Amino acid sequence: MKTIASTDHVLHFPKAELSGGELVRPYECPERWDYIVEALANSGFSAPQAPTPLDMATVEKVHGDDYLRFLAQAWSLWEAEGYQGEALPMAVPNRRMQQREPENINGKLGYFAGATETAITATTWQAVQSSAACAQTAARLLGTSETSAFALCRPPGHHAGFDLYGGYCFLNNAAIAAQQLRDAGASKVAILDVDFHHGNGTQDIFYERNDVLFVSLHGNPGHAFPYFLGYADETGKNEGEGYNINYPMLPGTRYSVWSDALTDALDRIDQYFPDALVVSLGVDTFERDPISFFKLTSDDFTRYGNAIGKRKHPTLFVMEGGYAVEEIGINTRNVLQGFLNA
Amino acid sequence: MKTIASTDHVLHFPKAELSGGELVRPYECPERWDYIVEALANSGFSAPQAPTPLDMATVEKVHGDDYLRFLAQAWSLWEAEGYQGEALPMAVPNRRMQQREPENINGKLGYFAGATETAITATTWQAVQSSAACAQTAARLLGTSETSAFALCRPPGHHAGFDLYGGYCFLNNAAIAAQQLRDAGASKVAILDVDFHHGNGTQDIFYERNDVLFVSLHGNPGHAFPYFLGYADETGKNEGEGYNINYPMLPGTRYSVWSDALTDALDRIDQYFPDALVVSLGVDTFERDPISFFKLTSDDFTRYGNAIGKRKHPTLFVMEGGYAVEEIGINTRNVLQGFLNA
Ligand SMILES: [Zn+2]
Ligand SMILES: [Zn+2]
Repeated sequence: MKTIASTDHVLHFPKAELSGGELVRPYECPERWDYIVEALANSGFSAPQAPTPLDMATVEKVHGDDYLRFLAQAWSLWEAEGYQGEALPMAVPNRRMQQREPENINGKLGYFAGATETAITATTWQAVQSSAACAQTAARLLGTSETSAFALCRPPGHHAGFDLYGGYCFLNNAAIAAQQLRDAGASKVAILDVDFHHGNGTQDIFYERNDVLFVSLHGNPGHAFPYFLGYADETGKNEGEGYNINYPMLPGTRYSVWSDALTDALDRIDQYFPDALVVSLGVDTFERDPISFFKLTSDDFTRYGNAIGKRKHPTLFVMEGGYAVEEIGINTRNVLQGFLNA
Repeated sequence: MKTIASTDHVLHFPKAELSGGELVRPYECPERWDYIVEALANSGFSAPQAPTPLDMATVEKVHGDDYLRFLAQAWSLWEAEGYQGEALPMAVPNRRMQQREPENINGKLGYFAGATETAITATTWQAVQSSAACAQTAARLLGTSETSAFALCRPPGHHAGFDLYGGYCFLNNAAIAAQQLRDAGASKVAILDVDFHHGNGTQDIFYERNDVLFVSLHGNPGHAFPYFLGYADETGKNEGEGYNINYPMLPGTRYSVWSDALTDALDRIDQYFPDALVVSLGVDTFERDPISFFKLTSDDFTRYGNAIGKRKHPTLFVMEGGYAVEEIGINTRNVLQGFLNA
């Protein structure tokens, strides 16, 4: 299995995120990438390859033009105001408010914010594009002799909606990969999101489409970020009705329960007969993850990688979350090895 | 003119608000209250009187039950999580998300956040209730021999919606005053909001009602907080259609332009034939206000107080914003003196 990764990831690392009422060092940090690269190298995976430049035509099919313009301009507009901090929103269009993009950068940040903890820095946009390029390049591999690939994306993507950023995410790497697969000839693509957090951005992007099935296992949104999407009764809309499947699970969930949901999810995916499977791979389901509440062990990651591999779909893994930094490499490698050994 | 004020205001003073990507000392600070009390005393106003306790039955007519329960419980739920900072939201229900109140306090904070800069502390709720009590007590004075009164509220209220807090506001003092006047027999009440910022919370509360006319002069929301309400085409809904009037104005607006809007606003209020007028009095239209962009001078405040007084409505002034702290007392006093001298 080839890995696509970009060293540009270091260009996105804000000084702070908003957490517990404080500005703290982001849990989503560059060492995450290093630990994964190291663990894969130690286990005989081939060295990561750099991506080809991002084709924005694909991106424009899953994100709004106004949103992409905002991401490209946000830092320069912020800088022009002379603020001392990194760009964080402070006003948001909640219910009964106008959905109009303001001229002022504070207004724009809130307008496009799906969550308000994630800062934008001077070099965020470059890192974000390179991360998406990894997903796109890896997706292209599936059209060749490869039956699987790994996009080591950073920053992650699954919280980025059609025109919303937040939760460490800006461009939705998994959605871009799925769109790339569609454009390259796949008639149906399934996305399986095993990150601890609901893939609210991915759901948002494909909610009215039936050519991409979205299936997510995650912490119940009443108790876990992103809080405002991920309920079981969100099943899709219009043409997409029936093509969105959520498995919210409660605090303390162990592998015995989680794996039952996975089996059901994989059955539903098999019944969809996808031409390719994209796995949004977050390993923050780990028992010692500092911001999550599932109880998977490192061996459980091998088990579920194996379960996914047994379904024999052409499979693209796209890196999402995982914040127990020292174990992130081992847990990620375990999924990929379990998959390959199926 | 009697002033109603509570020393409980000191119980709300977070260490920080989120501004320019940093946690900074809140612009909405306790000295604001002191400067106003001092300026009024120096000009021969009678000493402030304490309010009677807040009657929640009035509050429940302008705010949601779930929201009031949240405000009362927010700090204890936050404290139970063991966070080190003050309570600030980090995830919000933006467009296409669920409007369901989560169980988790981070989710609740975002669910009820109309803006995300304003922290909740251990004693915020007590200060908020006492501030609203000032507005309610002052409104009761209008039913006696008094034809005007001043509620020196802190924290302010006009950004607090039916079930949304933010912009330094939690309970909508002006809305509570208007409701109190209605319940005491006024058949129609007008609210004139002259704070620099749009009174988005007040608009939200009365948007579908025709017994309370809401008229606001403010910075254009494309350029100014609260960014997502305050456009001229927001005219009310259902029974409230035609009873919401916004005058958004651009950066650099001087009194010559602002006062034309005021004249028009006062004409519209006269045509409504209200039994009482509530003025949401923010003096952040001042030329040296640190977070606003209108250019009124201290003498302009006297002029417009006089213009309001000439209309001869029973009038209740409710304190809102104003962040040029050293001038806040003089500018507030000028409005009230101008009014009394009409
Ligand atoms: Zn996650
Ligand atoms: Zn204001």
